Amino acid sequence: MVVPIEWREDKLRILDQRELPYREAYIDIYTPYQLAEAIKSMAIRGAPLLGVAAAWGVYLSIAKESETDREAFFKALFTGAELIKNSRPTAINIANAVNRALEVAVRMTKEPLGVIKDGIYETARKIQEENVAQCLAIAEAGVNLIKNNNKVLTICNTGRLATGAIGTALGILFLAYQRGVKFSVFVSETRPLLQGSRITAWELQREGIPVTLITDNMVGYAMKKGMIDIVIVGADRITANGDTANKIGTYTLAILAHNHKIPFYVAAPSTSFDLTLSSGDEIPIEERSPDEIRFLMGKLVAPRDIPVWNPAFDVTPVKYITGIITEKGIIEAPSKAKIKDFLTG
Amino acid sequence: MVVPIEWREDKLRILDQRELPYREAYIDIYTPYQLAEAIKSMAIRGAPLLGVAAAWGVYLSIAKESETDREAFFKALFTGAELIKNSRPTAINIANAVNRALEVAVRMTKEPLGVIKDGIYETARKIQEENVAQCLAIAEAGVNLIKNNNKVLTICNTGRLATGAIGTALGILFLAYQRGVKFSVFVSETRPLLQGSRITAWELQREGIPVTLITDNMVGYAMKKGMIDIVIVGADRITANGDTANKIGTYTLAILAHNHKIPFYVAAPSTSFDLTLSSGDEIPIEERSPDEIRFLMGKLVAPRDIPVWNPAFDVTPVKYITGIITEKGIIEAPSKAKIKDFLTG
Repeated sequence: MVVPIEWREDKLRILDQRELPYREAYIDIYTPYQLAEAIKSMAIRGAPLLGVAAAWGVYLSIAKESETDREAFFKALFTGAELIKNSRPTAINIANAVNRALEVAVRMTKEPLGVIKDGIYETARKIQEENVAQCLAIAEAGVNLIKNNNKVLTICNTGRLATGAIGTALGILFLAYQRGVKFSVFVSETRPLLQGSRITAWELQREGIPVTLITDNMVGYAMKKGMIDIVIVGADRITANGDTANKIGTYTLAILAHNHKIPFYVAAPSTSFDLTLSSGDEIPIEERSPDEIRFLMGKLVAPRDIPVWNPAFDVTPVKYITGIITEKGIIEAPSKAKIKDFLTG
Repeated sequence: MVVPIEWREDKLRILDQRELPYREAYIDIYTPYQLAEAIKSMAIRGAPLLGVAAAWGVYLSIAKESETDREAFFKALFTGAELIKNSRPTAINIANAVNRALEVAVRMTKEPLGVIKDGIYETARKIQEENVAQCLAIAEAGVNLIKNNNKVLTICNTGRLATGAIGTALGILFLAYQRGVKFSVFVSETRPLLQGSRITAWELQREGIPVTLITDNMVGYAMKKGMIDIVIVGADRITANGDTANKIGTYTLAILAHNHKIPFYVAAPSTSFDLTLSSGDEIPIEERSPDEIRFLMGKLVAPRDIPVWNPAFDVTPVKYITGIITEKGIIEAPSKAKIKDFLTG
């Protein structure tokens, strides 16, 4: 079993996901700066896993601080937290995890620094454990959506490598398969960084689930030909009304699914909700380097200086979302009121 | 100026479009077999250009035949024609051009073989010349669709390298730009073979037209953000009712354009119509090698043995097509009756 994140004594060891599926290479992370770089470069990725990594990053920022100099300690803590929070703007799990670790420190502010260190360590460990439990609960909540002979479409990667646990959208598929449901999956390659081809195709294949790889522009035609029964995707942030940011291309899948009357589900832990934002228009969308599109596998595939637009995510309006699958169950036909009741109820 | 096809004394010289934009490499073609291979491997591509190439291919099949052995001559002719016709099943221009060259031979069947040779040579030359004139007329017919400040979306390549002339969809843009219209173009990279990044981005940039490259899965989000005013694409075959086969991904663009109330135009010479087919369901869709998706620029980007679905084209139903721009004018809101009147009127 490949482990995408692991705390090892004095460092965070992460799997370098840019190398998959060719090579299992690991990176040892000793500082929040190194972690922010690993997140920005997408050596580590996946909304829930980024939450776990971010919590460990907060711990890294004070793990080696002296336990006597309070000023230096808190400065290191807040500097490290800020670095990590800014590493990728769209995934709310990063900010949520960082805030939770900071709250612990603030609550313990009068305690000895060693105690605060332990508190942050425990919080990171707990966030990681909760993630495992949340993914299992999401899988359980969604498993009955997958019927025998279904052809499921997904995009990007929402499996073990995106979560450090069973996964969100893929977790549902893993569980359905374990329960003996016979279905197959189409995965779209997910340009520009090919998480679909490189990671999801590989994860599904390792599990034994029948999988077919297609390019992102084949999705519409597959639906037209009746090749897709249900779409399940992950989420990087969900606003109070249910609008959902996810990997670029998700919005297109939602429009196509709507047009072909195919159910479109989002699977995410409740930590992916950001109730401070009323709609998707308020979600910050990260734009990445043009070279991610100009180059493929290190080779130039376009004019060297061609202008590029490279948003990493898009926003799917709630009206195109059939249901949101969380660890607490499914929010069918989500709306602001339903989401509020569901999360607080 | 890059010349994608040229008859040179005893051979057909084609630009190897797989090498663009890195290298201008040419391939000399001496036999219809070599031509069929060049077409299959997409060294040469683009529906109108394939028509021109196919006509020259028919000539190649008899160019070096003895002018005394009629049996051998006609055998070579029909064998060569068949080879070329079967090289790519979706593009109707190939079959049309081959049939036109064969008809000449059949009409002249009693003539000396040298005369038939000359007749086929003249037919190929004429098809090539007509293509130039058709493209200019398409550009003239469509040029007023492009307004100042328009943001135009296109897919694949429909320019000089797809036609050997000014182009179809891109020809309209070239002419609009020459006439002083200020507009910009978004081009989607067009997986799996990246004709958008490799060729269209390069052609537009060389012309001086502002162009932005996006991946295929960014198209929906670009439309949602109001970044696209009009979509113009080419066609590989148009049936009697107006259903249109074009590069995979075109159907998705049409659905997205429909959803965002953006006009969606198809630009193609009248030779792209196949009135023997009543609807798009009857168009044969070529499926290509899985390795086109498993590999990128020679590098493996997915599990080596992952199953792949790789249709080269999809079919856009006529109801999503705002108009078809031909060398005879624009068929607005196309229908079977309108198309028949238009083509025969």
